Amino acid sequence: MNVLILGADGYLGWPTALHFKARNHNVTVADNYLKRRMERSIGVTPLILPELLEVRAKQFDNMPCHIFDLSKEEGFKTLCNILENDRINTIVHYAEQPSAPFSMRSRSAAIETQVNNIAGTLNLMFAVKKVNPDIHIIKLGTMGEYGTPNIDIEEGWLDITHKGREDRVLFPKRPGSFYHLSKVHDSHNLEFTCRIWGLRVTDLNQGIVYGVGTEDGPYDSNNRTSFHYDETFGTVLNRFIVQSLLGIPITVYGTGGQQRGFLDIRDTMKCVQIAAEVPAAPGEFKVRNQYTQKYCVMHIADCVVKAIGGKIEELPNPRVEAEQHYYSPVNDSFILDGLTPHFLTAGLIQEMADAISPFLDRVRLNSIEPKTKWVL
Amino acid sequence: MNVLILGADGYLGWPTALHFKARNHNVTVADNYLKRRMERSIGVTPLILPELLEVRAKQFDNMPCHIFDLSKEEGFKTLCNILENDRINTIVHYAEQPSAPFSMRSRSAAIETQVNNIAGTLNLMFAVKKVNPDIHIIKLGTMGEYGTPNIDIEEGWLDITHKGREDRVLFPKRPGSFYHLSKVHDSHNLEFTCRIWGLRVTDLNQGIVYGVGTEDGPYDSNNRTSFHYDETFGTVLNRFIVQSLLGIPITVYGTGGQQRGFLDIRDTMKCVQIAAEVPAAPGEFKVRNQYTQKYCVMHIADCVVKAIGGKIEELPNPRVEAEQHYYSPVNDSFILDGLTPHFLTAGLIQEMADAISPFLDRVRLNSIEPKTKWVL
Repeated sequence: MNVLILGADGYLGWPTALHFKARNHNVTVADNYLKRRMERSIGVTPLILPELLEVRAKQFDNMPCHIFDLSKEEGFKTLCNILENDRINTIVHYAEQPSAPFSMRSRSAAIETQVNNIAGTLNLMFAVKKVNPDIHIIKLGTMGEYGTPNIDIEEGWLDITHKGREDRVLFPKRPGSFYHLSKVHDSHNLEFTCRIWGLRVTDLNQGIVYGVGTEDGPYDSNNRTSFHYDETFGTVLNRFIVQSLLGIPITVYGTGGQQRGFLDIRDTMKCVQIAAEVPAAPGEFKVRNQYTQKYCVMHIADCVVKAIGGKIEELPNPRVEAEQHYYSPVNDSFILDGLTPHFLTAGLIQEMADAISPFLDRVRLNSIEPKTKWVL
Repeated sequence: MNVLILGADGYLGWPTALHFKARNHNVTVADNYLKRRMERSIGVTPLILPELLEVRAKQFDNMPCHIFDLSKEEGFKTLCNILENDRINTIVHYAEQPSAPFSMRSRSAAIETQVNNIAGTLNLMFAVKKVNPDIHIIKLGTMGEYGTPNIDIEEGWLDITHKGREDRVLFPKRPGSFYHLSKVHDSHNLEFTCRIWGLRVTDLNQGIVYGVGTEDGPYDSNNRTSFHYDETFGTVLNRFIVQSLLGIPITVYGTGGQQRGFLDIRDTMKCVQIAAEVPAAPGEFKVRNQYTQKYCVMHIADCVVKAIGGKIEELPNPRVEAEQHYYSPVNDSFILDGLTPHFLTAGLIQEMADAISPFLDRVRLNSIEPKTKWVL
């Protein structure tokens, strides 16, 4: 395959590039460093911050690397050139503002998130239509788009019977932030272009990812990816381990009864690989739920305490979300196509702790506390 | 009521302002003339083009009038000032790029449509939250957001049973253009702010409007509204009457089997009035389907031929849409609240023909033919 990774500077983008590269695919990477700028603008730093994408790419047979803004006019032209010149047939699209709390910080952050994500994805669709509609687009979405409905969450589509008549519809979503909404908007736009232009799209509704190392980017090598622990970009298990190691309270939002889908970063790699190898057909909007385990947040905190110690503290929930709810998302699609999950174990938590311990002196304590409230 | 009409320069915005004014409400109007600029940019002119909103507003007791761009940073501040100074308690939000064909013209038109509509509506929500969350927002959407599902179209929400469990979800939509998609995105954003901030929103999914005069803006007065017949901004009945009067073919897209909901512009006025008088409760995202009659497009063409003559021609359909399909949208909500519809009659078609005949010399024939194709 000739694979283009958009958003390759990020937590998942970089290991994905390495994963495809190691499997002898041609890989082109791109980013606009938006997340780095956002980090600076709100004063947070990752615990592990790799070198710039262009520097890293050079070390891998001069992997083609392009720094441009997909959401802008020039970005469209650059993308068209890349698709043509590198004869791309698979695009993995991570190039979005990735944080729910960031999108809830302010009016301008909400608008920036939605405009950036929507315009970028629109440019992507138009570029594929123009250059080669047969290119397979793999778009990263999130399980958070669904919210916590009282019915089972199917994989993107729902067979429905209503007043004795039947239809197949996009699964109705109830997203929990302006960020999650932006992904829902993207999905609607993408489904439309499958329908009218015959584009091929796989939409991955991914759970919360944890982990520090992958097969091709081990945590103790220079190929490791970034690691965030802050309230804005840090995800829950990653943040809990940092809190435990620092000896400060492991902060659970509310009662911690919120259930979510989780997966190991190594499983993300495998899922994206499967998505690429078993592509959507022309005109198909294929949706897969990409998570391997369902836990409530308090359970994750308990696991950390059992594995490496610590004390749990319940904080007033800064988000508006149900803390007790039904949660039953289907995730057959990847399992049927051969995914063998890495489940969360005490051993893995210990391994993550070992991996990040050398960097603990970089922690800024004040970036952990949740300051972004859903309701002001 | 203290009513703010956003998009008051438009086909529906201006008669809505007159309608509330005539019922002794305080009315403030606003627009940014985006539609006028778009018309110029693509070389179309309405058959009837009223004076600028600010000129018209002056003639009604100096109705407060503000020209600003809601989608921009300064627009947010201007809106906050208006909400405070005029103690607005009801907002009617028409201020969006209103044309499906315009949104399908090009990549930049698609992005402009979605960014303008989404950013404007986000600014509106944030302004209401900041100044007074009790303000009732009435947002104009369209029946076209639903597409043509094989099940009955409920009014915005759907009670669903799946695998023996129940939930109430936003009705799953299948919009037919980047414009329609922008309205779906707005609806999701609005529902979210009802849920987390307790905003009060009525979302009106409106059918295709026809007509030239309203009670307070008769077609033979200076208070009349605009009238479009072109492929981009003209709606189907309006365009057919112009074609009949010119003695050119009445152009039906495809076989004309597409069914849609329609309503008289006078019923739009009454519906918006009812929506304002029976508002959404705090935290409620209230959806009403705003149409009175369901017709297939060929039937509308037949009605025109029977009323004022003409010859029908079937054109290759420039859009991607089903021409034979189930279509059963519920529209109880306004009827139950007192709407008495004006149905389409030969008399009304004759009246519309009389109203626009004096302006026929302004017609540009080349702006009628559908040049915007959904698939290039």
